[in-house]
Amino acid sequence: MAQNNSNENTKIVLGKNQYGKAEVRVVKVTRDTDRHEIEDLSVTSQLRGDFDAAHFDGDNGHVVPTDTQKNTVFGFARDGVGSPEQFLIRLANHFTSEFGWVTGGRWEAEQYAWERISAPSQGKAEGHDHSFVRKGQEVRNAVVVKEGDTIQVISGLNDLTVLKSTQSGFVGYPKDRFTTLEETTDRILATDVSARWRYSPEAIANGSVDFNKSYDDVKALLLEGFTEGYSYALQHTLYGMAQKVLEAHPEIEELRFSTPNKHHFLVDLTPFGLDNPNEVFYAADRPYGLIEANFQRESISADNDAWDGITGFC
Amino acid sequence: MAQNNSNENTKIVLGKNQYGKAEVRVVKVTRDTDRHEIEDLSVTSQLRGDFDAAHFDGDNGHVVPTDTQKNTVFGFARDGVGSPEQFLIRLANHFTSEFGWVTGGRWEAEQYAWERISAPSQGKAEGHDHSFVRKGQEVRNAVVVKEGDTIQVISGLNDLTVLKSTQSGFVGYPKDRFTTLEETTDRILATDVSARWRYSPEAIANGSVDFNKSYDDVKALLLEGFTEGYSYALQHTLYGMAQKVLEAHPEIEELRFSTPNKHHFLVDLTPFGLDNPNEVFYAADRPYGLIEANFQRESISADNDAWDGITGFC
Amino acid sequence: MAQNNSNENTKIVLGKNQYGKAEVRVVKVTRDTDRHEIEDLSVTSQLRGDFDAAHFDGDNGHVVPTDTQKNTVFGFARDGVGSPEQFLIRLANHFTSEFGWVTGGRWEAEQYAWERISAPSQGKAEGHDHSFVRKGQEVRNAVVVKEGDTIQVISGLNDLTVLKSTQSGFVGYPKDRFTTLEETTDRILATDVSARWRYSPEAIANGSVDFNKSYDDVKALLLEGFTEGYSYALQHTLYGMAQKVLEAHPEIEELRFSTPNKHHFLVDLTPFGLDNPNEVFYAADRPYGLIEANFQRESISADNDAWDGITGFC
Amino acid sequence: MAQNNSNENTKIVLGKNQYGKAEVRVVKVTRDTDRHEIEDLSVTSQLRGDFDAAHFDGDNGHVVPTDTQKNTVFGFARDGVGSPEQFLIRLANHFTSEFGWVTGGRWEAEQYAWERISAPSQGKAEGHDHSFVRKGQEVRNAVVVKEGDTIQVISGLNDLTVLKSTQSGFVGYPKDRFTTLEETTDRILATDVSARWRYSPEAIANGSVDFNKSYDDVKALLLEGFTEGYSYALQHTLYGMAQKVLEAHPEIEELRFSTPNKHHFLVDLTPFGLDNPNEVFYAADRPYGLIEANFQRESISADNDAWDGITGFC
Repeated sequence: MAQNNSNENTKIVLGKNQYGKAEVRVVKVTRDTDRHEIEDLSVTSQLRGDFDAAHFDGDNGHVVPTDTQKNTVFGFARDGVGSPEQFLIRLANHFTSEFGWVTGGRWEAEQYAWERISAPSQGKAEGHDHSFVRKGQEVRNAVVVKEGDTIQVISGLNDLTVLKSTQSGFVGYPKDRFTTLEETTDRILATDVSARWRYSPEAIANGSVDFNKSYDDVKALLLEGFTEGYSYALQHTLYGMAQKVLEAHPEIEELRFSTPNKHHFLVDLTPFGLDNPNEVFYAADRPYGLIEANFQRESISADNDAWDGITGFC
Repeated sequence: MAQNNSNENTKIVLGKNQYGKAEVRVVKVTRDTDRHEIEDLSVTSQLRGDFDAAHFDGDNGHVVPTDTQKNTVFGFARDGVGSPEQFLIRLANHFTSEFGWVTGGRWEAEQYAWERISAPSQGKAEGHDHSFVRKGQEVRNAVVVKEGDTIQVISGLNDLTVLKSTQSGFVGYPKDRFTTLEETTDRILATDVSARWRYSPEAIANGSVDFNKSYDDVKALLLEGFTEGYSYALQHTLYGMAQKVLEAHPEIEELRFSTPNKHHFLVDLTPFGLDNPNEVFYAADRPYGLIEANFQRESISADNDAWDGITGFC
Repeated sequence: MAQNNSNENTKIVLGKNQYGKAEVRVVKVTRDTDRHEIEDLSVTSQLRGDFDAAHFDGDNGHVVPTDTQKNTVFGFARDGVGSPEQFLIRLANHFTSEFGWVTGGRWEAEQYAWERISAPSQGKAEGHDHSFVRKGQEVRNAVVVKEGDTIQVISGLNDLTVLKSTQSGFVGYPKDRFTTLEETTDRILATDVSARWRYSPEAIANGSVDFNKSYDDVKALLLEGFTEGYSYALQHTLYGMAQKVLEAHPEIEELRFSTPNKHHFLVDLTPFGLDNPNEVFYAADRPYGLIEANFQRESISADNDAWDGITGFC
Repeated sequence: MAQNNSNENTKIVLGKNQYGKAEVRVVKVTRDTDRHEIEDLSVTSQLRGDFDAAHFDGDNGHVVPTDTQKNTVFGFARDGVGSPEQFLIRLANHFTSEFGWVTGGRWEAEQYAWERISAPSQGKAEGHDHSFVRKGQEVRNAVVVKEGDTIQVISGLNDLTVLKSTQSGFVGYPKDRFTTLEETTDRILATDVSARWRYSPEAIANGSVDFNKSYDDVKALLLEGFTEGYSYALQHTLYGMAQKVLEAHPEIEELRFSTPNKHHFLVDLTPFGLDNPNEVFYAADRPYGLIEANFQRESISADNDAWDGITGFC
């Protein structure tokens, strides 16, 4: 093979690799009745397996085109989506059974939520049959990794922006030559929650997880955990949020956060002859604190490669 | 002056100009009681007036520093914001009265909405006292332009993403050599509403506008107008939306839209042996249709320079 | 008509409006010889004219589909682009002559520059015949506005990021209650130059402008103007830049800037026992100064509506 | 500890975690002579070690504030940067030696390149002493991971956008029910190169790597590899690029790519009566192909956790 024609020191092998089609924007309208439903996703499909010849020899005999992967996403959407997790699992099973040399892969989706517009013509509370407005709050996501017969599912959300206007402080930290930060017992705590949780492979295998219900409940618990108690640091609050989720959801093995500490600096108004009793803040963009933490049941194995390639979750 | 030392052909004058501080991110927490309120804005302040010497001679005697403009935003926030429009009017009046050579200016704000987190510890319906989540739907904005004694106010919103899954078509258009589009009587109509409305200077002058109430109502009417009737084109739907607003709000003189037509293309599934009865769509990013229209009362003068510098509103 | 069925106060008319297809990404490869050329643009076409019936009555008889506008962009690219300005003028003339009710419009383009990859296999200096790398520095743009027989052309560039590490200061400004900024005679001056220049309608009408040559020269002069002399304020430096362009280019009537003052704050290192003789800076994102100025020949009329809809140029 | 007060099933432990300050924008001007030098970076510092008490008990005794990490970045910049890799190694050694419980961490930087403005006043070829323009092409990056005494260094670049206008095809791929793509032997190949390469820990430990020289050379080889030969697929071209780098740089153990296949679709102009001999293309944004491949010397161990948290490199 092409890679072997050089001397010993430069013998090159192909390590981990995957390829596919990214960000296929598929919108599924279910219109069995006059009351339509929308599912709106961005789907990425990437295959893993034996692709040496494509890289070394330019032989595409194993390369299921990324265009075909895209087409498959649209074709499968004809039968409905259900949940991003279920949809990705269907894709995973299809590609690994259809093509012998495809031993696994990684499928990822973002889902955008819509709600019915509240219109007087159809009853405000029920909302309109076929007119919708994007919710716009957090973005839901899912990753499915299949290798051999094992399917791993990581669900998550991004950009759930939350803020506590009191009941947060930061004291008791170590000081050194470079420390200028002053301790405070009353500050604003704000973050964009990015959280991902991995289901136990057993729960996935036996099909017992209701992904949509689980998602709604985890989101509610994360918000609830954020509200409770005094925050001694963002790390401390994240633990409180994780605890709520892991206690209520035995099917979840671990929960990871990657969360900015979005600093809100109290503005010094004294040069202008004004006081500022924690009322006027400057919301800074950069730099920001960045807190990443993985909370897991004691029983699970320390690491899991389903997380590979997920940005910013250490 | 420096600009006059060249020959006739190249005599350069300073035309329209303004300067200031952009995107001052100010967060005001009102904490008179345990139930806090948040106001979260990005404010831009730009002054107009006699600044020839700064440009031509490097003489900054008239240049109120952009840093001072920023400080003033924070200082004024100490007294509360109220509404972005009121806050900008206060800034406008301050700068034009404080500095004789500042004859006017342009002040702009975006406001980000927060809602209380629904937490069982405090009663789900009422929401938490001091824990909030960003609403994330549309972004509210406001522009105040002052020149001499006249104050113009343009309010608006961006990124209100809406979709009708039926009751939209596009037929009867002219065809030429470059036409390949086929007519359709059932398609998805989707757009990100960017709308701006200008209040009559009289309503501003007599202080009769409740900007927050007006904003909420205009947003509701825009959504309602979007739901109603069959859409023959996005232009047609925009008129329906404008009509609702202008009929209900005599204090508004004109309403402008800049709205993408976010194409949702029906995917041809026949090569895969599947039908597609308006169920599976590809949501395209670019290119997109772009529809800009200005609806105004017949009585008003044709154009108004308060709109200068607002992007993408023709 | 639909708009007339309400009472006098709410009679609604259609003001300024335009519509079309935005951000058509067209890449033209010229391959007459083995040495290929690339032209890479994002084109927006918007028509103006009599579109009342589309808005008020849902009658699309005058609505040249945005899809047709897109097709026309691709069809016209078959004959080459030449320069973005020439290409847009061709589109303008086509649409206004093809459709009687289209009285004018606005066409806009961004152009992305590529350079040949320097590869030893083909001679480093000459660069490769058909392998290219994006230049990535500034983005060139052009706007053509046609109304009746008059064509206006505004050329420009965005995101030309420049920095002077000395020879810049800011002193002599007015102070008030909100002033805390200290004067400095040695600071960093940095900005992203966004500049637009309008050619005289006569130069456009007689076809005497070589747009590509003019563009290259204006960019060089802007950079050159930035380097020269001591900067008393960004305003002062902008004048120096404009002066160079307007003196060398009689075919240009006016030049406008919208430029952030990208603050680089000297970091106070004294708490760490270190001095900082203008060596270590914190580059802030927001807020930023925003300086907008229009330099024009004394002879031209004060304002020109070809600028309408260009963001952030007052 | 707080995490132990629940029953067996919900016992929660803290897995991998890190925290710090992200995107510290530091600009270092070296002005020992009139000919200034600029180094412009965005630095992220994250510490790893024993932080259980902060999460579980709200005890910040081990939490070196992210503010202190930011200050340290600025303080260290006083002595110059040199290269992003060297700068991050200095930070890594500082934090792990200063604080006993900090056992390691991850430090990351982006560096933005500037070039001297070519100004006639100072000699065009040499460029100006203190006026600079951003290069704007690719962004250089570096990651340093320290754990115990081992330091791993991964260097890289993003957004190096390249295009071949011929000598690329895609044939011989497997077909199934969902395949509609047609084979082609002449297409445009375009990608944004994101590449990262990991140096051998030995080369890092003995200080033999000249990071700036190595970076410039790797970039040149990647570009050169892209130009050469016929591309049977992006995978095939990536191998050619990797081969050049690994053969010339024995200090590099592996090279990873995450590269979009930026589709340029040939526009069908036949409906308009025009041919299109590979001249007019539509450049699509989404979806895009996504090819990720890791090329490594046969001798190295299969995986390396220095890659954890790097987005999109499988």
